[in-house]
Amino acid sequence: MAAEIVNPRSDSVTDNNPDAVFALHRGGKMAVQATVPVQNKDDLSLAYTPGVAKVCTAIAEQPELVNEYTWKSNVVAVVTDGTAVLGLGDIGPEASLPVMEGKAILFKQFGGVDAVPIALATKDTDEIVETVVRLAPSFGGVNLEDISAPRCFEIERRLQEALDIPIFHDDQHGTAIVTLAALRNAAKLTGRTLGDLRAVISGSGAAGIAIAKILVDAGIGDVCVTDRKGVVSADRADLTDVKAEIAGLTNRTGLTGSLEQALAGADVFIGVSGGTVAEEAVASMAKDSFVFAMANPNPEVHPEVAHKYAAVVATGRSDFPNQINNVLAFPGIFAGALKVRAARITEGMKIAAADAIAGVVGDELAADYVIPSPFDERVAEAVAAAVAAAAKADGVARLG
Amino acid sequence: MAAEIVNPRSDSVTDNNPDAVFALHRGGKMAVQATVPVQNKDDLSLAYTPGVAKVCTAIAEQPELVNEYTWKSNVVAVVTDGTAVLGLGDIGPEASLPVMEGKAILFKQFGGVDAVPIALATKDTDEIVETVVRLAPSFGGVNLEDISAPRCFEIERRLQEALDIPIFHDDQHGTAIVTLAALRNAAKLTGRTLGDLRAVISGSGAAGIAIAKILVDAGIGDVCVTDRKGVVSADRADLTDVKAEIAGLTNRTGLTGSLEQALAGADVFIGVSGGTVAEEAVASMAKDSFVFAMANPNPEVHPEVAHKYAAVVATGRSDFPNQINNVLAFPGIFAGALKVRAARITEGMKIAAADAIAGVVGDELAADYVIPSPFDERVAEAVAAAVAAAAKADGVARLG
Repeated sequence: MAAEIVNPRSDSVTDNNPDAVFALHRGGKMAVQATVPVQNKDDLSLAYTPGVAKVCTAIAEQPELVNEYTWKSNVVAVVTDGTAVLGLGDIGPEASLPVMEGKAILFKQFGGVDAVPIALATKDTDEIVETVVRLAPSFGGVNLEDISAPRCFEIERRLQEALDIPIFHDDQHGTAIVTLAALRNAAKLTGRTLGDLRAVISGSGAAGIAIAKILVDAGIGDVCVTDRKGVVSADRADLTDVKAEIAGLTNRTGLTGSLEQALAGADVFIGVSGGTVAEEAVASMAKDSFVFAMANPNPEVHPEVAHKYAAVVATGRSDFPNQINNVLAFPGIFAGALKVRAARITEGMKIAAADAIAGVVGDELAADYVIPSPFDERVAEAVAAAVAAAAKADGVARLG
Repeated sequence: MAAEIVNPRSDSVTDNNPDAVFALHRGGKMAVQATVPVQNKDDLSLAYTPGVAKVCTAIAEQPELVNEYTWKSNVVAVVTDGTAVLGLGDIGPEASLPVMEGKAILFKQFGGVDAVPIALATKDTDEIVETVVRLAPSFGGVNLEDISAPRCFEIERRLQEALDIPIFHDDQHGTAIVTLAALRNAAKLTGRTLGDLRAVISGSGAAGIAIAKILVDAGIGDVCVTDRKGVVSADRADLTDVKAEIAGLTNRTGLTGSLEQALAGADVFIGVSGGTVAEEAVASMAKDSFVFAMANPNPEVHPEVAHKYAAVVATGRSDFPNQINNVLAFPGIFAGALKVRAARITEGMKIAAADAIAGVVGDELAADYVIPSPFDERVAEAVAAAVAAAAKADGVARLG
């Protein structure tokens, strides 16, 4: 999510060539290709009629063969309703398509996974769920994208209940996984474990909630989430269901009050909200703190300020070191899940993905290198292998 | 439709290599590809964030730009519910996928059109309609495929009313267009016009109904449709809405009785039903008759029998001359309609497609060559040009 918010100031290429973006987008960014020949009568008789009927009949008799003899097992629907696109908000399904196409080609480029943009002409939770359920026979997985909170939580949960293919809301889990990876390496660098750390998350949208959950699952010492009214604590009467749930899972010490108050003595700041954190609050954090300020275009704490106090600084921007970028996660996660035909993506698979991302950094670990480059080709392969292994360990793999 | 019914005896390739079909289908027959580079940070900043936000914003402000800056305007959803797949019937959405993939690669190979298989987990007419309406923002057109009659008629009609992109049920119109093309050339070969001809159609499913309609629109002298109970005539009390409508459009002379009775003195037999027509009935047809026996694997009249009496014989089989094959129509029709961003596919566009197909045969016209080969590369281009021109003439083109 952080890396997916528009950042007009972070990259000189698009600034210096405003027309280059439109020139590149003309006609779209993706296409379909045949992977078998259809040049002559013999080709057609194998790939289409009459030969294809043998394959149809085989699948009708043994439904699981659809995964072997069609592209289903390697194709993901990238589903959105266009309500939370980048930092642009609710711009509608058509206007979201360039992002969905971009996502689709990243799936292919980094994970070897085929992906199809599906931008829906409805924002109704029930309708989105029933539509995706009806589409499911054609796809091996569903990547939910840019659907606004809190609907995104219910939509994902209901689809996971209804379908036995991986359903993954990337704005939640992709961001959470890459954040955890960076945190693992930052802890390692400073000789600590996750259990030693208390983290404060600014932002209670899709990313903030998911980051809190994965940190709890990964054994963080403590974490609290803040929204515009301050710490999300169980005593508040104004919480949504999702926030009430997160209040029960986090904030063991019962903090209340503002974000700035919560930061006093904290080890980790994680910003997925926008806004600005006062320098004094950053200064009040514990020694060797980590500041992950992921809002774009303006990080909640500017890296120059953060570096005065923090041991490790990460952002969502490509022009600073340690970019928290979802592309490190989603291609390998689906590649691994599809490879073993996982019925769903478990917490164990997500944590395995984070560990694999962190592991790629290896001995080169440094304060300005706690997370690999989005273009490090080792990442997706490592993530896919780790996710496939975790799927087997968690008993959700149906293959291999 | 005729060419799409399984024909295990028509092709030695699949018979001699039963395993070759499955080997070719392993992993599916299609893939997605990026058409722009995403190799480095600069590429990503143009094709994805932050550059992509400029395109999203432009589309949000000017919705029609979605057709210029995404793949939407060149991508067709191939939608089925798996209820009438080849000659296999209701085998379900998963088992239909090999056919939908085959269709998709034919769209690409012959028309340069991207296509995505969408096999739906519902057979309910309302649900199919609402699902496709919700998917529509992502697609430039919808090819309905292998949906059983009579639901296919209502689904197509309602989608055409709801959406302003081409909706085309290929089992109806593809077959009808190619049949009309063959009939044009057969008439030309024997020095007649369509107005000189009386045709009898055996079969009142998707193909039979659509063929009857296009022949009426194209100015056939007379046509009647028959079902299992005989001629579909207005005096029958057992007709569905669709058949009642067709009874009103056809059968000017008020024929009643059996298919065989209707054939006495008829100029054209069009079989899209299966079953067998008695040789005496073929013999009772007019001089220089045309027998288009398109059922697979067993034509309603075997070509050897038909040739005893008819001037022109066509089938759905690739191992006889004059194969009526939908692939001659749908790639070029969508290519032409998408090129000019047609709001729908009009009767004029269908007839223009048929004329273009017939025209490719040109001076080589002969009794065993009234229709081009499915692999004649001139066909899709000619069809696309004719369809685009007809869309403009009919006032449904929004471009060019």
